[in-house]
Amino acid sequence: MNNRDVLQLDQSDPLASRRGQFIVPDKTVYLDGNSLGCLPVVSRQRAQEVIDQQWGQDLITSWNRHGWIDLPVTVGEKIAALIGAAAGQTICCDSISVNLFKILSAALVMRPGRNLILSQRNNFPTDLYMAQGLQALLGKDTCELHLVDDDEIAPQLTDRVAMLMLSHVNFRTGRISDMQRMTEQAHQKGILVLWDLAHSAGVYPVELDQCQVDFAVGCGYKYLNGGPGAPAFAYIAKRHQHTFHQPLSGWMGHKAPFEFDVEYLPADGMSRLLVGTPPIISMSVLDAALDVFNDTDMKQVREKSLGLSSLFMRLVEQYEELAELICISPADDVERGSQLAYRHPHAFAICQALIAHGVVADFRAPDILRAGFSPLYLRYADIWHSVETLAQIMRQELWRDERYQQRSKVT
Amino acid sequence: MNNRDVLQLDQSDPLASRRGQFIVPDKTVYLDGNSLGCLPVVSRQRAQEVIDQQWGQDLITSWNRHGWIDLPVTVGEKIAALIGAAAGQTICCDSISVNLFKILSAALVMRPGRNLILSQRNNFPTDLYMAQGLQALLGKDTCELHLVDDDEIAPQLTDRVAMLMLSHVNFRTGRISDMQRMTEQAHQKGILVLWDLAHSAGVYPVELDQCQVDFAVGCGYKYLNGGPGAPAFAYIAKRHQHTFHQPLSGWMGHKAPFEFDVEYLPADGMSRLLVGTPPIISMSVLDAALDVFNDTDMKQVREKSLGLSSLFMRLVEQYEELAELICISPADDVERGSQLAYRHPHAFAICQALIAHGVVADFRAPDILRAGFSPLYLRYADIWHSVETLAQIMRQELWRDERYQQRSKVT
Repeated sequence: MNNRDVLQLDQSDPLASRRGQFIVPDKTVYLDGNSLGCLPVVSRQRAQEVIDQQWGQDLITSWNRHGWIDLPVTVGEKIAALIGAAAGQTICCDSISVNLFKILSAALVMRPGRNLILSQRNNFPTDLYMAQGLQALLGKDTCELHLVDDDEIAPQLTDRVAMLMLSHVNFRTGRISDMQRMTEQAHQKGILVLWDLAHSAGVYPVELDQCQVDFAVGCGYKYLNGGPGAPAFAYIAKRHQHTFHQPLSGWMGHKAPFEFDVEYLPADGMSRLLVGTPPIISMSVLDAALDVFNDTDMKQVREKSLGLSSLFMRLVEQYEELAELICISPADDVERGSQLAYRHPHAFAICQALIAHGVVADFRAPDILRAGFSPLYLRYADIWHSVETLAQIMRQELWRDERYQQRSKVT
Repeated sequence: MNNRDVLQLDQSDPLASRRGQFIVPDKTVYLDGNSLGCLPVVSRQRAQEVIDQQWGQDLITSWNRHGWIDLPVTVGEKIAALIGAAAGQTICCDSISVNLFKILSAALVMRPGRNLILSQRNNFPTDLYMAQGLQALLGKDTCELHLVDDDEIAPQLTDRVAMLMLSHVNFRTGRISDMQRMTEQAHQKGILVLWDLAHSAGVYPVELDQCQVDFAVGCGYKYLNGGPGAPAFAYIAKRHQHTFHQPLSGWMGHKAPFEFDVEYLPADGMSRLLVGTPPIISMSVLDAALDVFNDTDMKQVREKSLGLSSLFMRLVEQYEELAELICISPADDVERGSQLAYRHPHAFAICQALIAHGVVADFRAPDILRAGFSPLYLRYADIWHSVETLAQIMRQELWRDERYQQRSKVT
């Protein structure tokens, strides 16, 4: 594999033209689209329109005139198309954390006599924290979070488990869990299944309906490119919606919010997940960002995602000076999401040095260097350049510079 | 009172120049700042900066470089200055609804043996709905919402009440509740008090610390002009923070979120109210909007607010054709917030006709025409023009036009 091979890959990339739909900073290779996706050109335009015209000029009338009131559903349905969900099952609202609380609370009621929420010990922390919060509120007799290693899940699927809560792609290693198989195994024991799609929505052809998934959550600011802290989404399978009663019963989830009744009555369908007034500017920006996926074939996205990560892996293996970086992501394509994680005792400083040299990766405590691959705006040549830069940093031990040792609030 | 008197009022208005800090649509009198405040010029600039530079160019590094991670506290402290709160007690996050859930849950634990949440029957519905959601989740033995009329509150302050939850200014009538007196009465019975400041923050010199309030919530998009669905805020008195444990324990409220520990450990102070990743664009826009209040004397704001509403009231009384509009807001300045509500069987159509004639008021079911007064961008001449327009609509029965009868989703 040499530089010419890599340029050839870019020339034959069917997604190459998508890069033009994003603002990608000059002289930067951005390997952090799994933390915050790049700015889509349409989102920039939409923000201006929402602020100048819709808010600035049309003010309160925009709730009807510009469909602000429908945004949670509008955005939800755009996301549905990317995660294999038929209409009427996906809505955009709040954060993943808040949506987890709604679903966990509702699911426990749907499985009377069962108190366990089973999850992966290495799941993303907020998923665990939200279950811990619910446990503290309800008491362990009603809600108890039980954590196990990935390979211990199957034997723990007992009739005490109400909910199996899993991340589709692990936030550290990028390992994909088998959605079809694990959902089926859980269902055989009468267990409801929730998948966190934070690291798969928008970069992997998720098939929620086909896998008979019960619930899912995911975020708008990673591979969906919806902007910093973009609102999240939630999916509830149609068959569960009429028995789904969540405790964050805010006025936006009321059947008739503008009647201002004293009694809460949940809206039909997904709107009952809504709570308070949504952040319209952030949600509009996400709405626009999703249009980048119009006519995008998720299978092509997946192919390029694997192409980018396997290229990165192979190039790292070619450099002797990178031998100390231990890859903890699956080598097998089928098991790998759209990121790679490498352990190194000085991962933090290496990451800082990389950023200073124009390659934006990220660090995950305690010792992981993480690179994410966004197929819509990354080129194979970018991967080549990244690994070259990384090799140079290691060869010349540039990471030893004390500027790169200083920890900041967000790592 | 004639047109010349009114122009005189504008000439001697110490806040007159503030209007220039907002984009106010031409040929419009905007009496709906109590639903969605006008766009501040600085917010428009800030949005552009956040999107083009911070997101577009600096991407993930902006969490540190541009202080995104500190925004909830930064914004919270700016709001604190407007509601009489010393530092370290106010934070910006989520929606009022979600914040209510956190506080109600935590407060019940702080008052063991008491299960009642006492509130006003005419409180804003989402406040009641969130308490109903918590009641459904925990059961009535642990949490029961008890609703009474305003004048029945005092006798209902019993030792079964854990929390008294009140709106500072009623969303329909604009009636102000006596924060000092009611907080004191509740405290005498060991009851915690929560005030919803949705209709007072930014337009009334709220004194939370001085009134020894325990908890407060409020929203960013009304008189704080933070844009549609701007994030909300919450206040927890310092003395309660160390025993305040809320169940929506998301990763942003963790003591060390970037350690990615398996166990939740709440942050010290107000940050334990944070849940998921906040909508940075919407929150930044609110942050900028608050700078309009720099060097603003809240007493002057209150004086002008009363000046505008009393002028509106007096002018309405001068017109015989407006006699059928029944004012249900307090005539007494001390009891009146920054809005007026009039009952009329055809309030909806009248409101639509007003909007079509360039005077944006709003309608509240079933029969209320509501006018809000934002002292930072409204002129006394605008009030004159509004009432003239209203009188014309009633005199000529313009509201009978069938265009004005059609209900839309948001009223």
